Amino acid sequence: MSTATDDSVRNGVDTVTLFATLDAVKEAPEAAKFQFRARNRWVSGTHSRTTIDDYFGVGEERAHEAATVHDIDHPKVLVGSDKGPTPVEYLLHALAGCLTAGLGNIAAARGIELTEVTSTVEGDIDLNGVLGLDPQVRNGFEQIRVRFDVKGNASPEKLRQLVEQSRARSAVFDVFTNSVPVAIEVAAG
Amino acid sequence: MSTATDDSVRNGVDTVTLFATLDAVKEAPEAAKFQFRARNRWVSGTHSRTTIDDYFGVGEERAHEAATVHDIDHPKVLVGSDKGPTPVEYLLHALAGCLTAGLGNIAAARGIELTEVTSTVEGDIDLNGVLGLDPQVRNGFEQIRVRFDVKGNASPEKLRQLVEQSRARSAVFDVFTNSVPVAIEVAAG
Repeated sequence: MSTATDDSVRNGVDTVTLFATLDAVKEAPEAAKFQFRARNRWVSGTHSRTTIDDYFGVGEERAHEAATVHDIDHPKVLVGSDKGPTPVEYLLHALAGCLTAGLGNIAAARGIELTEVTSTVEGDIDLNGVLGLDPQVRNGFEQIRVRFDVKGNASPEKLRQLVEQSRARSAVFDVFTNSVPVAIEVAAG
Repeated sequence: MSTATDDSVRNGVDTVTLFATLDAVKEAPEAAKFQFRARNRWVSGTHSRTTIDDYFGVGEERAHEAATVHDIDHPKVLVGSDKGPTPVEYLLHALAGCLTAGLGNIAAARGIELTEVTSTVEGDIDLNGVLGLDPQVRNGFEQIRVRFDVKGNASPEKLRQLVEQSRARSAVFDVFTNSVPVAIEVAAG
């Protein structure tokens, strides 16, 4: 961002680079084909640990600036060791982060300066499903509610439209509200 | 687990407590109604930070043994600041952690000792969707592939059946392969 003018950086988003990136992908749509990965190792009981590092995008293998490690577990009340958040809490986190990232970009593109954005995502789940105790109960969330508080230099209506546009372009919202094929392969021995 | 015999703890899972918990929920199905939460705050650009701490379950408000904080961002090649994994990588992580937690529990219940479980989850995504450049392309993953390597004191067939049973009882697998209603509310100003 060192070459950007003050005007081009808004909400921490370099809009010149943002629009240049959009133009570049328009010219070369293959650049937008990404593959993301998570590499997990079981630790004990319900506790495992994931490393997130490499990915493919813009035509080549890449890596994050820093690999990150993420513990995941069940709480003790569910016979886990509570060494980290539950899998389903990470889903809620991903939704909050996806909608918020879109909000930052879209506000910048529309010339709106955000001052504060917070959100709470709640998911209701009846564990009679995953515990196998009631075949009428699904395994996953029954419902998810997102509550955003958005402050910035635009009308409440325009701020609400940012969230609506972010929702309309959210990868995580799409995964939650439409199905994705998941293939599972097992090497055992 | 201090009162458990050696035989009852397998793969780090106290099976006596596991079965007692199942029996308790059978007696009081309302105990299995949980609400999980993620609280997010925008930092700058596409970077935000989520705190995971409190939840509701077994009839009362609870909290993890330790609150955890999770950075989430877009990589620089996508005009982010790469301060953490992307939202969609957290989805892949959640799937790995959910299937692996189930595996630990189910193996323990079936008397199988696991020695090593690793998995890699890959998700293909064409960002022409989220970038709004091609209305034919969805926003989310087009496909997710999970590759498990499972080692333990059972036949390859029995080890593969553990993964299959974990998939059949996975909350995250259900969210990905069936839709969940997501309601979004915005307070703006």
